Order: sequence, then structure tokens, then C-alpha cells
Amino acid sequence: MSDNPGAEGGKTVKIGVLGRGTVGSALIGLLEERAAVIEAETGLHPVVSGVLTRSQGDGEQIVDEADVIVEVMGGLEPAEALVRRALMAGKPVVTANKQLLSRKGDQLFPLASEHGAALRYEAAVGGAVPIVRVLGDTLSATPVERVHGIVNGTTNYILTAMAKRGESYAEALKDAQDAGFAEADPTEDVSGSDAAAKMALLAMLAFGTWVSIDDVDHTGIDKLDLQDIAYAREFDLALKLVGTAEKLADGSVSVRVHPMFLPMTHPLASVDGSYNAVTIESPHVEEITLQGPGAGGLPTASAVLGDLISVLHGADEPKHAWVTLPKAADVDSAFYLHFEVDDEPGVLSQVAQVLGLQKISIRSVAQKGSGDGARLVMITHRAPESAMAAAIGMISGLGFVRGEPRAIRVFDEENA
Amino acid sequence: MSDNPGAEGGKTVKIGVLGRGTVGSALIGLLEERAAVIEAETGLHPVVSGVLTRSQGDGEQIVDEADVIVEVMGGLEPAEALVRRALMAGKPVVTANKQLLSRKGDQLFPLASEHGAALRYEAAVGGAVPIVRVLGDTLSATPVERVHGIVNGTTNYILTAMAKRGESYAEALKDAQDAGFAEADPTEDVSGSDAAAKMALLAMLAFGTWVSIDDVDHTGIDKLDLQDIAYAREFDLALKLVGTAEKLADGSVSVRVHPMFLPMTHPLASVDGSYNAVTIESPHVEEITLQGPGAGGLPTASAVLGDLISVLHGADEPKHAWVTLPKAADVDSAFYLHFEVDDEPGVLSQVAQVLGLQKISIRSVAQKGSGDGARLVMITHRAPESAMAAAIGMISGLGFVRGEPRAIRVFDEENA
Repeated sequence: MSDNPGAEGGKTVKIGVLGRGTVGSALIGLLEERAAVIEAETGLHPVVSGVLTRSQGDGEQIVDEADVIVEVMGGLEPAEALVRRALMAGKPVVTANKQLLSRKGDQLFPLASEHGAALRYEAAVGGAVPIVRVLGDTLSATPVERVHGIVNGTTNYILTAMAKRGESYAEALKDAQDAGFAEADPTEDVSGSDAAAKMALLAMLAFGTWVSIDDVDHTGIDKLDLQDIAYAREFDLALKLVGTAEKLADGSVSVRVHPMFLPMTHPLASVDGSYNAVTIESPHVEEITLQGPGAGGLPTASAVLGDLISVLHGADEPKHAWVTLPKAADVDSAFYLHFEVDDEPGVLSQVAQVLGLQKISIRSVAQKGSGDGARLVMITHRAPESAMAAAIGMISGLGFVRGEPRAIRVFDEENA
Repeated sequence: MSDNPGAEGGKTVKIGVLGRGTVGSALIGLLEERAAVIEAETGLHPVVSGVLTRSQGDGEQIVDEADVIVEVMGGLEPAEALVRRALMAGKPVVTANKQLLSRKGDQLFPLASEHGAALRYEAAVGGAVPIVRVLGDTLSATPVERVHGIVNGTTNYILTAMAKRGESYAEALKDAQDAGFAEADPTEDVSGSDAAAKMALLAMLAFGTWVSIDDVDHTGIDKLDLQDIAYAREFDLALKLVGTAEKLADGSVSVRVHPMFLPMTHPLASVDGSYNAVTIESPHVEEITLQGPGAGGLPTASAVLGDLISVLHGADEPKHAWVTLPKAADVDSAFYLHFEVDDEPGVLSQVAQVLGLQKISIRSVAQKGSGDGARLVMITHRAPESAMAAAIGMISGLGFVRGEPRAIRVFDEENA
């Protein structure tokens, strides 16, 4: 930190801000508005020494002149090169860049340790939900078994609109775009890719093992049908895009993101709109749930500010004991299945027979409609997902099955 | 920290544990079980250098010999003297003692600052719910408007049993005692005093001003009637013991604990059993909710362990900018009112007239039963609590009112 006294007499700390989108702008406002509070708490007077925008500023110069770097520009380059430059100079970095960390964290975290530089990223996961702090600091010595999360606000907004207002996926997406909760190109959100990056980071924190976004199996919400939500309500279930990171009994780690039906009593079932929430399960602390706004300039900037203050306090960075854990080959899940079928006798028994061959047992079943609208809707008990994929393949080939079968995971008490 | 190498070769840090009840015993187990993880993370090998029990150990000697003190004995003395002794020697203290901090914090926090000693107390509020860390660290520069909390597991267990199983207060209390969720003498819990101590600490963290438990107006749950819960369900409300800490428009602070009816959509409404939850409201982060087990040896010991690791990381302690804020004289609340009345014409109009005199307007009203069982049940809009108290006093004096009126606060969107 510089020795030159700031306006209020405290030592000045120069903050270099890379990116001036919604979060960057909100942060610059916060730093000014809360400067006195920050100084009272840390003894340091923050000043923004440089801002890199798309059209202005020299990133390298901003990094070189600052004491602490805030990276809120997103994307891989030039963010990666600038973050590396800062860390190699031993300068603390606070970032909101989940894509960068979930792809390059295996290099960036060791680089930070090597140079004794903090690398903090609360704002990269869950907006204002303080999940990184709680998993990384409070629970750092607590063995975590499983993390479930609604970590993408756009998809939760869309699913809420479908469930509460009966809108189709397309209508709900348009609403989300009009309300500023979805981008013009929503692919990264609705495909589950954004949530996958965040779950990779949460898995890394929870289990101390490197997980790349490429290790995260994910399905989006763009193939969901309003009918599925209506049927789910009959079974008293809510449909959410749920990320799961868990350590299996064999010591392997599974990280995945899929639409999932949750019982209404599950803490994530009632998280609506653009809010995010994460549930941490551990034999030591049972179940802790954190909920809050998953996006928005000011909430996300507040998370950045929390990290910044933590960096200014100069705590030792948690030295995570990195271990290498195998990735799980298969996991067990319960499923909701939907088949459009010809309206003829024997349909249910043949479907049940195929499921039985794969050792999948049925929990409940309903035959809906008739004639051209005949459908078979069922919920299974847990079974290996590989067995379920094989069964669905076989059922698709049966002569009386029309269209694509739909399969959606169902939360099971013993399960993800 | 001592220089003698521990069993694994890291520097040894000596932990003095004051108290060996449920939490103390669980912590001693955790320190042994997680020693390797703690050492990998902090570079320090924890050893328990002394344990003070009711019958064994010399507290002063344990403090003098240890590097870090964990105080989980509860009560004011000898806890206070031993905590003072540790802080004055510059030794970090981790405590779960809400009574001590909510009565003597105005002396203990400055004492800790003066001697540069950490004083951490995550386990004093909300068991495993990481509310102290989030309010004190993550949100330390974020302006908080209001904190709502279910911070007592015993009363939430009892209220859940009354609501879900239709048990009377006495039956539910006995169930809680049988299940180990209530003490033989439950007074501190059911009177709201335990929750009041915790809300005083949360108010202190949220607003940076000293709040004593004596400043916290509180009502318990021991006068609640099963009928009130049944009526509330008709209005689609859930009854919880809710603590509120808020900064009013005039800059004053109000901290209080009362039974409160919550709309089912409120994040605290679905927190059941012995779980605790806290909601933080701020214009910067909208609303963040944290939920988890509110008690239990292992969850509480895990919170202590999180503090201990934070202390071993050697972060600067947050330097709270203490301010002195006036205590609010009066607050506005909406109310549920229940009157047993003679079954005669004109009753409702006279009650409405008294409320009108105090400028209290009625949101909804229902006349229940007839003859000896006639009752008037209503929900009001928000009004100053002083006006409500005056109105209830006047209504009690009306000739047709039998027994004691019952008044329970109702959460109002614009309100506590």
C-alpha cells in the first residue's frame, strides 16, 4: 500500500478496476460512497487509480500502478493476462470472473499462492450470496458432503414465470429479456453453462480438489415443457435448475447441473425470481442454506467490496490442502419420465418391463389424455443414470412411443 | 504461538478450553479429528493445553498457559474474569457466550481492541448459521437497514409442533424437553430472553452501535394459544418468534423480540423445527437469508472451529467504527387482535370506534363462534405500538369484553 496520505489522512490504497460494466460502475460508486467506512475499518483510504473500459485505458499500466486489482471485465482474454500480471507482482486480485476461474483456476490459484497474493472471488458465484466466504472460510475445516445450488438468476426467473404465471418457455424468456434478467443472446444462461462454471468453483471450495467447467455435466432449461411443470405440481414438486456437487462414498466427486424437481419442503423449492440459493450439507453442521440476489450491479459490487475489505485486512489466505479426487463415472438419480404414446392396451406394461430390465423401479405413474394426446407420466426410484439412459433409449424404440421422451431428475431424500 | 513443533512438524498452538458441556466436548473431539486439516490450512498444529470443567481445572492457569482461549462455559462469572484476563494478555478469545457479550460487550470489545486481541463469537448467535461472519466481515461496509431473525431453536421447535401437530403449548414444550431441545427450566428460551441477547449482538454488528440486552424489548411464546395459530392459518400466516433489529428513519435503533405472524412467502415462514434463520435487508444487497441448525453440540462447535481458524490466520480484526445511536421510543406495527366478547349487537362497531380514536385502521375482521364462545378476531394496518397499547387498554375496559385480549404482531411488507 502507498504511504501517501489520502484525503482523510489515512494511508491511500490504489484500486485498479478492470471493466466498467454494470458491476464495475456500481463498485466505483460504492468505493466513493463508502470510503469513510472502509477507512474507519481498515485504516486505508481507497482511491480508484485506473479504470479499464472497452475503449479506454491501458490494462497493463493500470495493473502496474495499482495496489489492488478488481477484475470485473469477464471473458478469458485479456482478463487472464492482466490477472496473471497482478498476481506475479504479488498484488491481491478480487474477481467476479467465473469463466476465467473455472477454466484457468488450476493455474491461477497456485500462481497466487506462489506469489503470496490474495485471489478472492465472492462475486463470481451467487451474486450477493456470501457462499464463497462461508465455504472457504467459516467451513474450511468442516467436511462437506454435498452442495446444492440455484446459482443462475436468469433461469430461475424464467422457471418462476413458467410456474407462477403459466407462461411458455419462449414467453418467459422474452419477459426475462424485457426485465433485464436475460441477455439478448441467453445461451450461456439457459444452456446451464453459467451455472456449471459456478458449481465447478463451489466443488473446488467444498472438496479442495480442482474441478474444471469441462468436468461438469450440464443440461439447460430450453427444452422444458410447461406440461412438465403442471404434472410436477400434481406430485407436489417444484421445478428448478439445480447444481449439485457431491463427494460419493467411493471418494469420487460428481458435479452436475440439471433441471430438477424438488419437494416443496426443500429449502431451494421456494427460491423464486432472480434469487440464488445454496445449501451445504455436512454431518457436522447438518444443512446450511444461504439465499440472496443472484445478480444485479449493486449486490454483485457489494460482494466485490466485501472481498476488497478482506484483502485490506491482510489476512493470510486460506492455504487449501489441494487433493486430487477422481471424477465420478455414474451417479444415482430418481427421474420423472414423460412419454407420448399410442392409446392402446399394454403400453404401460411394456414400459414397466423395460425399466425392470434395467432394475429401475417405479414410484408413481399416471396415464394422461387419450387418443392422439395419450401420455404416460411416471416418477421412478433412484437408479444409476447410465441404466436410465439405456432404458430411455430402449423405450424410444418401442413402436407405440411418439416424439422424444422427456426425462427430468427428481430430488430424492437419500440423493442429489 | 509456541515454537515447539507439533506431532506433524508444524508449530504448535495451545488451545485452552473453558467449559466441557455439549459444545466444549464436541469441540475437543473436532480439534483432534480435524487437526491435520487445520494444520494444512493454517500451518499450526492445535493441541488442547487445558480444559476447565465444573469440578476440575484452574481457569487462570489454563488461560495463562494457552495461546488461544475458547470460552464455552456460559454465564457471567467466572467467564467474564477469564475472558478479561485472556484479552488483557493479548490472547485471542473465541466465545459462544451471548449472555456475557450482550451484557458486558461495551467493556469487552474495547478491551480486545486496546490489547490487539481478537474476540470472535460466531457460535453465540444462531448456532451453525454463519451470521456473525457475514454481517461482521462480508457486509461490514454495507449499510444494513434491518435484520430479522429466528434465533432461538427451542421456541421454533415448540411453535412448529403447535402449528404442524396441533399440540398445545404445554404439550409442545414437553415434547421439546423429551427431544432434548428444551431445558428442564425453559424460562430463558420461552421468555424470549435468549433471543433478545442474540438480537442485541446482531444489532451491534449491523449498526455499529452498542446495544445491551436490557435495551431489547421482548415477549415470549408462553402465553400463545393454539387458537391463534389456527386463525392465523385462515389468514395464510405462520406464527414465529421473530427478532427485529432496525434503524428507523430518524436514525434511532429499535431491537425487539416478539411472536409475529409472517406471510407464507416470507423467507422465515418456512423455517421449521429447531432451525434458525436470519434475513438481512439493505438497499445494496436487497435481502440475504441464512438458515441452519440453531443449536446442537457439533454444529455449534463447528462455528467455534471456524472462528478459531480465522484467528489462526491472523487477520486484522475488523475495526468497527462505533457510533452512539439513540434507542427508538416507539415503532409502528400491524397487529392481530383476539377478543372474547358477549354475543350481542354493536360489539364490532364499538371496538372499531376505539381503534379509530387511536387512528388504527382495520385490514380484516372475523366474528367467530356464538354465545359463550363468541370471539372477535381482526388484523390491523400498521400503527404506533403505543397507540395500539392504549387502544387495547380501552377495549379491555368495555363491558362486553371477557378475559384478556390477545395481541400479536403481524409482519407488514413496509415493516418489521
